[in-house]
Order: sequence, then structure tokens, then C-alpha cells
Amino acid sequence: MKPSGPIPPDFKIMDDELTIGGKVASELVREAGDTPLFVYSRDIVAARMEGLRKAMPERLKIHYAMKANPFAPLLEFMSELVDGLDIASGGEFVMAREAGFLPREISFAGPGKRDEELKAAIKAGVTINLESANEARRALDVASFLSVTPRLAIRVNPDFEMRGSGMKMGGGAKPFGIDQAQVADVAKEIIAAAADWRGLHIYTGSQALDAAAIIETQANVLSLAAELSSQIGAELPHLNMGGGFGIPYFDKDQPLDIGAVGSALSEQFAKLPDILQQTEFAIELGRYLVGEAGVYLTRIVDRKVSHGVTYLVTDGGLHHQLAASGNFGTVVRRNYPVAIASHFGAEPVEEVSIVGCLCTPLDRLADNVMMPRAEVGDLVAVFCAGAYGASASPSAFLGQGPARELLV
Amino acid sequence: MKPSGPIPPDFKIMDDELTIGGKVASELVREAGDTPLFVYSRDIVAARMEGLRKAMPERLKIHYAMKANPFAPLLEFMSELVDGLDIASGGEFVMAREAGFLPREISFAGPGKRDEELKAAIKAGVTINLESANEARRALDVASFLSVTPRLAIRVNPDFEMRGSGMKMGGGAKPFGIDQAQVADVAKEIIAAAADWRGLHIYTGSQALDAAAIIETQANVLSLAAELSSQIGAELPHLNMGGGFGIPYFDKDQPLDIGAVGSALSEQFAKLPDILQQTEFAIELGRYLVGEAGVYLTRIVDRKVSHGVTYLVTDGGLHHQLAASGNFGTVVRRNYPVAIASHFGAEPVEEVSIVGCLCTPLDRLADNVMMPRAEVGDLVAVFCAGAYGASASPSAFLGQGPARELLV
Repeated sequence: MKPSGPIPPDFKIMDDELTIGGKVASELVREAGDTPLFVYSRDIVAARMEGLRKAMPERLKIHYAMKANPFAPLLEFMSELVDGLDIASGGEFVMAREAGFLPREISFAGPGKRDEELKAAIKAGVTINLESANEARRALDVASFLSVTPRLAIRVNPDFEMRGSGMKMGGGAKPFGIDQAQVADVAKEIIAAAADWRGLHIYTGSQALDAAAIIETQANVLSLAAELSSQIGAELPHLNMGGGFGIPYFDKDQPLDIGAVGSALSEQFAKLPDILQQTEFAIELGRYLVGEAGVYLTRIVDRKVSHGVTYLVTDGGLHHQLAASGNFGTVVRRNYPVAIASHFGAEPVEEVSIVGCLCTPLDRLADNVMMPRAEVGDLVAVFCAGAYGASASPSAFLGQGPARELLV
Repeated sequence: MKPSGPIPPDFKIMDDELTIGGKVASELVREAGDTPLFVYSRDIVAARMEGLRKAMPERLKIHYAMKANPFAPLLEFMSELVDGLDIASGGEFVMAREAGFLPREISFAGPGKRDEELKAAIKAGVTINLESANEARRALDVASFLSVTPRLAIRVNPDFEMRGSGMKMGGGAKPFGIDQAQVADVAKEIIAAAADWRGLHIYTGSQALDAAAIIETQANVLSLAAELSSQIGAELPHLNMGGGFGIPYFDKDQPLDIGAVGSALSEQFAKLPDILQQTEFAIELGRYLVGEAGVYLTRIVDRKVSHGVTYLVTDGGLHHQLAASGNFGTVVRRNYPVAIASHFGAEPVEEVSIVGCLCTPLDRLADNVMMPRAEVGDLVAVFCAGAYGASASPSAFLGQGPARELLV
């Protein structure tokens, strides 16, 4: 038997069924037309934002990293909640505009920006987080060609990294950002070229659950920002301190203590060096804001026993849930939080493996988990499906196509 | 320094550039409109098929497993070359029909077939490879509802597996097929229900490069088929012996010796037991037929040095090349065959890492490889991109969208 991950506490039971946004799973599937279906809850996202605002210093801006979930209605909803948006491509820029974000609320990071992406963003007045000295020159050239003043910031590749981060985004050689030792030179070049100098972006890691690691990193980020600002000889209008707030996916994962992070950051803000006094500070969060607000619902189409193992075969799978299947940057596969949505209140009575419909042994949703009895037609819920699900999975694989999505 | 994989021998150089189908890479990109671009070569696929036909016994049918690459023009081309098609979903069935395959040439395997998928396939006369006793009953019900005679075969979960297989598809508990001990009962039930009994499908593994392992497995498959046929008390009109022929992706991989496999299979066919004398035999291949015929072309948009490491940043990445990035069922990432397409003939002079444009450290196309000097604007080629590339990658990730594709 293997444990499944912790089900986020926000989900209620009604008539023995999982409810999301006040509706039972089967009703949501009827509304959407069919399974597989992603359901995202406005209430859970709003509550998450509210908790975060309370915990963080008032001065801190909160940006949404839309790579986590670009579903149009959700993006529109986020535009009312957050202070800014981080995009990673020209495609995301188009979606952001359609969702109602203003160019000046948007910053664009990404190591491989194409010329046409730079052009569109600079023309509109988006802040470009420059990833290399080369890109700085390309951005200045584009701006000069367009006769506009580009809003430019520098993404820093810091010498330190976030302890316990899910993905290391700093420390040593990286394709992201400009090595901290080179930042001042590039910044001076930009400022000398009369660009609209926007400051720095220091992203150090992701999916961290350890408050102490985040506190330490944020202190390091502030200290590095002050040092670089002095080297540059100019204040930082804006400092994007990165994100990295994680959510619990797996057994024994504990939620991040944002109260502790917020208090420590308030203390840091209270003793800022002079050069950072006027700076606007922001964090950018994706997964933390929307990850736990999403559920993936898929229907059981077969129940079979092979050599003593009971398999529940669903009409969904890794084509919508690549990370949950354990195939996206994972070394040892562990179970996401999973439940039988149509018997959400029932006691677990049997050990099953839940698999997807794809003809590959990679397509696993839960290995050897204890579940209530489930039959063909029952709904399976995979939780923590609000981030890096639909858009981060190979939906065309085996001719399947995308899942339905619903914001409730 | 890390090695990159072996470049398939079929690619020529012209004017210092990689050529595919007689055209240089830069010309192909112009024709397609832009990078990133998958190019598939008719000539290489045709030569591969010809070599296979020569090596294999005449009696053996060759089916294409379209999950490897469903690109419409390629699928149309395959319809002229192969004897049958294996599909894995209702979506693939639609594509197969559009490409000109006839329903009676098609068989449908997959552990999670939905009712509507079964209906469409059975109505059209596609052979269903039944994956469970439950599915057998559902198929009979659907056929009875439609008043048609369903073409039914059984997918067997054999007790043995293929040694050295890239993915284990048999041996022990599996979501695929019916355990061999239960096959006879289900087959008798189908035959008693007056279905059109089509025989067995025994798939044991994939991506094997060891001829001895394949030879041993094929002998086991034939022996199991004979045994099951006796137990069932009926001949097998058709036996799908599975596939599993691999291609070399990584350094030190040696191409599969298909001459040896073909000779051994001829010997097996020469001494078939009586009960298999009238059986039609087929293998189903995907990757082996099209994998080496495809090249992924992506343009360098930045060249940067971070802490002494030179990065070539491209406009492509894991959103089209999930497997090459090392994030699809891979434990230890190794480099696919990669080259600078615009300097295909040049000597390697520097160690570089080639990364994609996504804002994630997972997006790697080649780690620490020796390459000729390459600049912004140069084209990078990732080989072995003909199978499980475009359709098996999260193309919507970070707002990127699908790559272009070209059959030449």
C-alpha cells in the first residue's frame, strides 16, 4: 500500500459526493458535458489570495505567474485579484491582453525570446526581464527601431539558490538571467541608452514548503538587490523577488507557513537599506495561488483484476496530468492526492491502482492506494490540479485531445 | 563533456548544411515559414520499410502503430506502405479514416475505451483488441445494440516480458490485456456470442535493440499463441505479435539486427504447430518505422555564457521534445543525437549546452556536448524526432503552441 497525497482542506462532501464551488462532481460533469474535466474554484483562489494579503506586508505586490494556469476565465478572474502578471511568451501576452491585463502590469521573462515577441511586448509597454547581455542589446535595438522607450529590468542569476526548492533556478551556471557579477555592467548600458529602467528580477527556486528556506532566500535576495543597486549607482524602481511558495502534493508534505514568511519579510522591510527605500517589491506566484483550487475529474471506464492487482481504468490520464503521472521532472513517482469523487465520504476498503486510458505503462494516476469501492461510471478526482495540469501535459498524445475546463 | 546520441546515417550534407529529402535545412524552414519545425522524410521511411520487408518472412504483415506519429500527410503516406494500422483512441480512428485507411485494416487497442469509441469502431468494422472480460461484454452489448457482428480479438497480458525492453508491457500485473490464464474463457464467450473472432494480440515490450531478446520473445509469443488457441479450441485468424523494435537514441546504442530477427522468425514460421498453420501473422511498429526519419529544427535565439558554461538558447524545447528533454519516463537524462544543422559538416570546437526557450530548468535539448561554433540564427537539429515528438509533448505549455510539420 502506498499513501496518496493530502487532499486540500477546502473541499466539502454533499450526498456522498465531492463538491467544488457548491456543486457536486456529477453535476459539474453534466454542466461541462463530459469527462475528463478540470474544475477550478473561484472561492478557493480568492480565499488563498486573502490569506496571502493578510500574511504579507502591505507594501508587497503580488503577481500571478500565468504559466501555472492560463485558462481564460481563470486569468480574467486573476486580473481582479493580483497586482501584476508575469508572462513567459508572446502567446501568453496575447492571452493576458484578452483577459484584461494592462501592458504596464505585465512583465515578460524567458530565456529564448524571439524578435517578434520582443517587438510586440516592447511596443505595448510590457516590462522585459532581460536574460542576457545579448538580449539587452536586442531589446534596445528593437525599441530604437520602433522609436519607443522600452521598460527594461534585468533578471539576475544569483550565486545562491533556495534550499529545498523543487527546481533550482539559481546558483552556478544557468540559462536563466544574467550572472550577478555581470548585472551592473548591463544595467549601466541600459540606463545610459535612456531605457525606462525598471529594476531587477531575482528568481531562486520553486515549490518550496520550508518557510525557513524562503525567509533565508528572501533576505539574500534583498541583500543582493541592495548590493547590485549600489554597483549600478541607481535605485531599483521595482524588485521582483521571485516566488517559490509550494503546495503539499505528497504524503507527509506540510503546508508552507506563510505567516512566518510574512512576518520575516515585514522585519526585512522595516530595516531596508536606504537604496531600497523607494523600491516597489513584488513576489510572483503561480502554483501557490491556483494549484490547490483545481480538481481533475475523470470517469472509470473499466475495473479489472490482473494477477491480484485491481485496476481502475479511467478516461483521463497523463495527457492531462503529466506531473501527477510522475513523468515531469520526477525521479521517484509518488501519488498526488486522489479520491473517488462519487463516494467522497466513504471509508477506504480496498487497495487499487488507478491508471489512465493511454496505452503506455507511464499512464498512472495512483499506485496501490486504499479507496472506497468504485465501479465503472464512478468519478475519480485528482487534486492539486489547478497548476501545471491542462497546459503542461501532452493533450494530443494518442489522439486524445484537451480536457474540458470549468471555473466555478 | 557528454556524448550525444548517434545521428542516423541517412542524412547528407550540402553547402555545409544538413539536408533532408534533398533540401537544406534553411530552405525547409523557409518553406515551412518558421522554426520550430519537424521535418519527416518519405525516402527514409520508405527505405526503412523496404529493408524490413526484405528481412522479414513474406508471410508477416507489417502494421503501423500511429501513436508514434499521427501527422496527416505522413499517415497518408504510411497507408500506401503498410498492411494495417493500430489505433489507440477514437480520435486516432478519425485521423486514420481521413488518411485513407479502411476500417478492416484497423485494430484498436487501449485499456480505457469509452462507450462512444467502442460504438464508432464496432459500427465501422474495426477489430477491437479487448483489454478485459468487462470490455468484452461491453463490446458484445454495443454490437448487439447496433445489430452488427463485431470483429473481436483479445489482447493478452502474457506471463513473460521482453528482456531489455524500454517499457515493460507484459509480465505480472498490468492494466493492459487479459491475463493469459483468463484468455480462453473470454475467447469462448466471444465465439459463443457469434462475434467475428479475430484472434490474439500479444504485446510484450517496446524500444528493444537486442535481437536475441526479440527473437526469444517472438518464440514465446508463438508458443503462447498456440497454447491459447488449443485451450480456446479454435484457430487464430490473426495474431498480432506486438512490436518492440527499437532505434538507437543514445551513445553506444547499436541498431537492432533485423536480419537476425527475420531469419529466426522464418525458422519459427517453418515449424509452426498445426493450429497456427492458417494464422495471419503481423507485427506492429511505430517508432521503428518513422522515428529516425524525423528531424526537429529549432533556431538559436541567444548565445550566452554563465559561470563558464556556454548556452545556446533555442526557440524550441520540451514543449515539442518532451522525451529528448529527458522528462518522459526517463530516470537518467542522456543526450539524443543533436547537431548544428547550419554547420552540419563542421568540426566540433566547443562544449555547449543547448536549451529550449521555456522558463524551466527541465527544458534541455543537449547537455555539455561538443559542437561546431554556432551563433544566434543558426539552426539546431534534434534527430530521432519522427516518433513520440510533436504529438507526445505539451505543446501548449507556456503559451508556445505546436511546432510546424513538413513531410518531404
